[in-house]
Amino acid sequence: MKIGILGATGYTGHELVRILNQHPEAEIVYLGSSSSAGKKFADVYPGLTESTVLELEKDEAVPDVEVLFCALPHGLTASRTRGFLDRNIKVIDLGADFRLRRYKIYEEWYKVKHPEPELIKEAVYGLPELYREEIRGKKLVANPGCFPTASLLGLVPLLRKGLLEPETIIIDGKSGVSGAGRGVSQAVHYSEVNENFKAYGVAQHRHTPEIEQELSKASGKEIFISFTPHLVPMTRGILTTSYASVRQGIEEAELRKCWEEIYQDEQFVHVMAEGNWPQTKYAYGSNHAYLQLKLDKRTNRVVIVSVIDNLVKGASGQAVQNMNILFGLPEEYGINNMGLWP
Amino acid sequence: MKIGILGATGYTGHELVRILNQHPEAEIVYLGSSSSAGKKFADVYPGLTESTVLELEKDEAVPDVEVLFCALPHGLTASRTRGFLDRNIKVIDLGADFRLRRYKIYEEWYKVKHPEPELIKEAVYGLPELYREEIRGKKLVANPGCFPTASLLGLVPLLRKGLLEPETIIIDGKSGVSGAGRGVSQAVHYSEVNENFKAYGVAQHRHTPEIEQELSKASGKEIFISFTPHLVPMTRGILTTSYASVRQGIEEAELRKCWEEIYQDEQFVHVMAEGNWPQTKYAYGSNHAYLQLKLDKRTNRVVIVSVIDNLVKGASGQAVQNMNILFGLPEEYGINNMGLWP
Amino acid sequence: MKIGILGATGYTGHELVRILNQHPEAEIVYLGSSSSAGKKFADVYPGLTESTVLELEKDEAVPDVEVLFCALPHGLTASRTRGFLDRNIKVIDLGADFRLRRYKIYEEWYKVKHPEPELIKEAVYGLPELYREEIRGKKLVANPGCFPTASLLGLVPLLRKGLLEPETIIIDGKSGVSGAGRGVSQAVHYSEVNENFKAYGVAQHRHTPEIEQELSKASGKEIFISFTPHLVPMTRGILTTSYASVRQGIEEAELRKCWEEIYQDEQFVHVMAEGNWPQTKYAYGSNHAYLQLKLDKRTNRVVIVSVIDNLVKGASGQAVQNMNILFGLPEEYGINNMGLWP
Amino acid sequence: MKIGILGATGYTGHELVRILNQHPEAEIVYLGSSSSAGKKFADVYPGLTESTVLELEKDEAVPDVEVLFCALPHGLTASRTRGFLDRNIKVIDLGADFRLRRYKIYEEWYKVKHPEPELIKEAVYGLPELYREEIRGKKLVANPGCFPTASLLGLVPLLRKGLLEPETIIIDGKSGVSGAGRGVSQAVHYSEVNENFKAYGVAQHRHTPEIEQELSKASGKEIFISFTPHLVPMTRGILTTSYASVRQGIEEAELRKCWEEIYQDEQFVHVMAEGNWPQTKYAYGSNHAYLQLKLDKRTNRVVIVSVIDNLVKGASGQAVQNMNILFGLPEEYGINNMGLWP
Repeated sequence: MKIGILGATGYTGHELVRILNQHPEAEIVYLGSSSSAGKKFADVYPGLTESTVLELEKDEAVPDVEVLFCALPHGLTASRTRGFLDRNIKVIDLGADFRLRRYKIYEEWYKVKHPEPELIKEAVYGLPELYREEIRGKKLVANPGCFPTASLLGLVPLLRKGLLEPETIIIDGKSGVSGAGRGVSQAVHYSEVNENFKAYGVAQHRHTPEIEQELSKASGKEIFISFTPHLVPMTRGILTTSYASVRQGIEEAELRKCWEEIYQDEQFVHVMAEGNWPQTKYAYGSNHAYLQLKLDKRTNRVVIVSVIDNLVKGASGQAVQNMNILFGLPEEYGINNMGLWP
Repeated sequence: MKIGILGATGYTGHELVRILNQHPEAEIVYLGSSSSAGKKFADVYPGLTESTVLELEKDEAVPDVEVLFCALPHGLTASRTRGFLDRNIKVIDLGADFRLRRYKIYEEWYKVKHPEPELIKEAVYGLPELYREEIRGKKLVANPGCFPTASLLGLVPLLRKGLLEPETIIIDGKSGVSGAGRGVSQAVHYSEVNENFKAYGVAQHRHTPEIEQELSKASGKEIFISFTPHLVPMTRGILTTSYASVRQGIEEAELRKCWEEIYQDEQFVHVMAEGNWPQTKYAYGSNHAYLQLKLDKRTNRVVIVSVIDNLVKGASGQAVQNMNILFGLPEEYGINNMGLWP
Repeated sequence: MKIGILGATGYTGHELVRILNQHPEAEIVYLGSSSSAGKKFADVYPGLTESTVLELEKDEAVPDVEVLFCALPHGLTASRTRGFLDRNIKVIDLGADFRLRRYKIYEEWYKVKHPEPELIKEAVYGLPELYREEIRGKKLVANPGCFPTASLLGLVPLLRKGLLEPETIIIDGKSGVSGAGRGVSQAVHYSEVNENFKAYGVAQHRHTPEIEQELSKASGKEIFISFTPHLVPMTRGILTTSYASVRQGIEEAELRKCWEEIYQDEQFVHVMAEGNWPQTKYAYGSNHAYLQLKLDKRTNRVVIVSVIDNLVKGASGQAVQNMNILFGLPEEYGINNMGLWP
Repeated sequence: MKIGILGATGYTGHELVRILNQHPEAEIVYLGSSSSAGKKFADVYPGLTESTVLELEKDEAVPDVEVLFCALPHGLTASRTRGFLDRNIKVIDLGADFRLRRYKIYEEWYKVKHPEPELIKEAVYGLPELYREEIRGKKLVANPGCFPTASLLGLVPLLRKGLLEPETIIIDGKSGVSGAGRGVSQAVHYSEVNENFKAYGVAQHRHTPEIEQELSKASGKEIFISFTPHLVPMTRGILTTSYASVRQGIEEAELRKCWEEIYQDEQFVHVMAEGNWPQTKYAYGSNHAYLQLKLDKRTNRVVIVSVIDNLVKGASGQAVQNMNILFGLPEEYGINNMGLWP
């Protein structure tokens, strides 16, 4: 399978290269970069070895690949996607351009005009464990955000079954620093992040409407949530702690059973044994997600903890999982490695 | 002022020594240790210099000091406090033995019998910015827990004014690893904490009833909260993110004004300018606390972020602040240093 | 290929499981553990998924495997190896029992009696890039230590060619904390390792005689070195900085050429382009090693920097590489993944 | 004492403010900044509290202070110093402009023309434990670099006594990231520094000629050294590991005695008890330095380990120590705090 990557030099681009390198059917034939065209990929990432032959090419020169991963700033992918689809190139967008069904919401939160609102309805929200059947046969996949992936895996099944009071949902998110990308700024300066912890984007993070869209869909009515992301002094990993009141009379066992039913045959989503709580490091460098919950009878609220590696299940790993689904390949190709420990 | 410390070799004991070392009126005359009696303090902490003359003495041999800091496992302080008070030694307990007004609650959460329930009513909950007048003239101070200190500073003033719906309160806490103490275990093994993030003690952390007691008092009715602590891969610092629905019609400005009124003359509690969010590192090694809030009109919930250094304002610094109040000294003696940055 | 692992619950054991899990010919049929027999492997490492079916068995019950990896404390492997070899089980020892050719040196540095000195001569020192031909066909492999692997890859080729003054060699080593293993102690307590850096085992680290043995062999005379290891506040990675005076008249280009000749066809050892210096993270989770050098004309000393991942090329990855050589498999089976970045 | 700081917004500027804030005689009356004039200091460092009243003023507007700390990029201080001295302002330069006695060496390593070579001879190299008497009464102090401070404290006394072979000296340095300053770049991006370790500036770091100058002076002949700095994934702290052959017949006890004689009355330099090795964290946030050594009889080389906090004894703390000496104040004013632990 011939593959291209647009925006190859960012962390999700590098992660795609790492994953596709261990994919038995994948061949990367194009790495596009607006900033580094003409360099070798190993000039940007000197630790690369297997991939040193790869050259970075101009952003515009996308050849006839079968699938194109787009890891571009928002707005850029949408404006070019029609052209790719017309050339019969399947597009997996790691950005936000096709995640929100209503372009007005996109424009409100991302502060740009959506260049191709018509295309949104051709896209599928690529969270395989929740929408696998809808993904098959599509040509355009909106790969979910990292915080949405973690939190939706926990909440959506419970909402679909009507076990939670949807308007009580609060999501407290924690992310490693790689989620901020490779660009330099005071906010990612080692000396100011290390031995430090903070909230950011309080009540205005762009993953909020994405999560709300999917939770509303699952609960059958429009809901709003509280979502607060925090920056953890570590490189990789996302953990979300979600709170919700449960419907009158619901027991913890029912919540757990709901998860177990939907995830029992999933190879990447793991409901942990009672008493074991997820740690981000369980997922380090892997496509696995881990879930746990506890119902506090004193408050009648459930606490749900989910973890993933933000760059794998939260980005490039899930993108390859989507590619495998699109092309009818075994879903684990390229992403069947265990996490690193320690 | 002649001072003793029981349980001197733990992190809060070392922190007391560091702070009292820069206190103009303090003289440490006794360091008690059950495990290391007979050693020098510098045998346990080889980096010590000023304090190398200090010897660790037997736990039982408390001399006639004016004030005794107790940094012992729970249960141990309570059983000996009566004896100290009878000898006219003021006691500041950094443990939990006198924090909970109802000994039944203590016994339920701490799984031990309270050895001296009668003494509880002689103790004051030593959070100076909320209870300064009650602390003056007392002989027994229950120094608050670290998570309670951070979260109560944000929530209590708003509850006292009736601005929040008390039964909607959720507190998501994050702590550095030093909060777990100096003891060794797999849970604090560097290789398993570094580059990792997890929740712990979900719905069963012992700071829960302590926070509930104070919030109930402030809101005038018994309430229960959700409290989930998390372990951050850093040594020092606590951040709590609290969520609550605000009372109908309340605006963000009123919440902020409430804080500003109560904290305007406080030297250790800082309401940050709008748009600036607290980072744990602002408080690194200092007794300062930083607060910020935002009212999300979409959900009518306020998000409150508080940070402190868990070993200073969350333990030994606040203990010295309480000592200064007990003895009528300027409150900042020993703790007027700025935080380290970076 | 049927494989067993003795001492499976340590970090190198887990790493073997991770690596063999992605090896196309490997089947783990036995995980031996003295401490956790009867548990599932996932009870010890809750993040495991693929491998949850694996049970930990008694240490003594080694079945008829084709190859057995021994990750045991020193002394234990040597006493049992004869039995394994007699049963036609090839043994790859990740410990130190067969690394030192002279058992007296072993006994002096490891402070135990060597239980089977006669077996030493049947063992090969398993550093494939330096001794590949000697490894083929052997039944007993002494897998090198992590510091020796890193430093020898840089120094041995230059010594073999007589380019350095061997008695001037100084090796300053730096290791991540996982090198200390999974056992708990104050020395690996997060709060005392994080934001901290120290030397340890100065002039008495057990890798010293191992490095000296190989350097002596390469230079044709017995030499002694200075070796100082340091503990870096990170989980994985080793970097060694080696210093040596070069022989009169030798230029930097000759040193570089020597490396390039020996390593040009090696897939795991990379001489970096001039000006690029190795970082431990280039090797993160991979079997790759990176080398760079610079000759300082002012002092006529060469500075050599080598990096590896201590748990992969420095332990389990190299062990699998040795297994592949023993069994005539492609050397990269199981270890052909790229390192994680970031 | 009225004090000014030029280049106040960098890390050493912030550290000066923190230290002077706890100095009983100091009053900061001027904070100069080329980039942030007009802002409050707390706009740049939002965690500041005590100091929020301080405004940043124009770089040029230095008022009539008694002492001016210059924390500017190299070259800038030298061009303005004559003017300050003429106004009877004592100058303590935290940069490199007056450290090297020979301006040609400065120009060679710093790649700029020295603007005032004549002034160099009026400057004193401000390492109090080695040059205290020369500092008294001076008007211009060249505050030493961080690596030089750490390594010279260990080596100079031994060289002065002729105990080492000076031409064999190798210094392997390790620094926390704050040494790189507050500017942003890929090299200090959290995701690329965390869980990573590397050498930098191999054989070309600018502290090399500074160390060589002082070692040459101590040994009475011009010598060259090997110096390799490394970047440690931590914020604060420097450790240097120095190697040197000892003169024929010298025993470890003599080396140790030499140190003990020179440092016995020093409050900031600590020769650790035999067997205890320095850790950077011992000095965290303090002006203390810790030393240890071991003579390896097998190689006849001594290994010397020194640690300091790079921002305190390695910069701002030592600058204040120098100020105290210049003005006849107790040397520990402002810097008598213990280090943080943990």
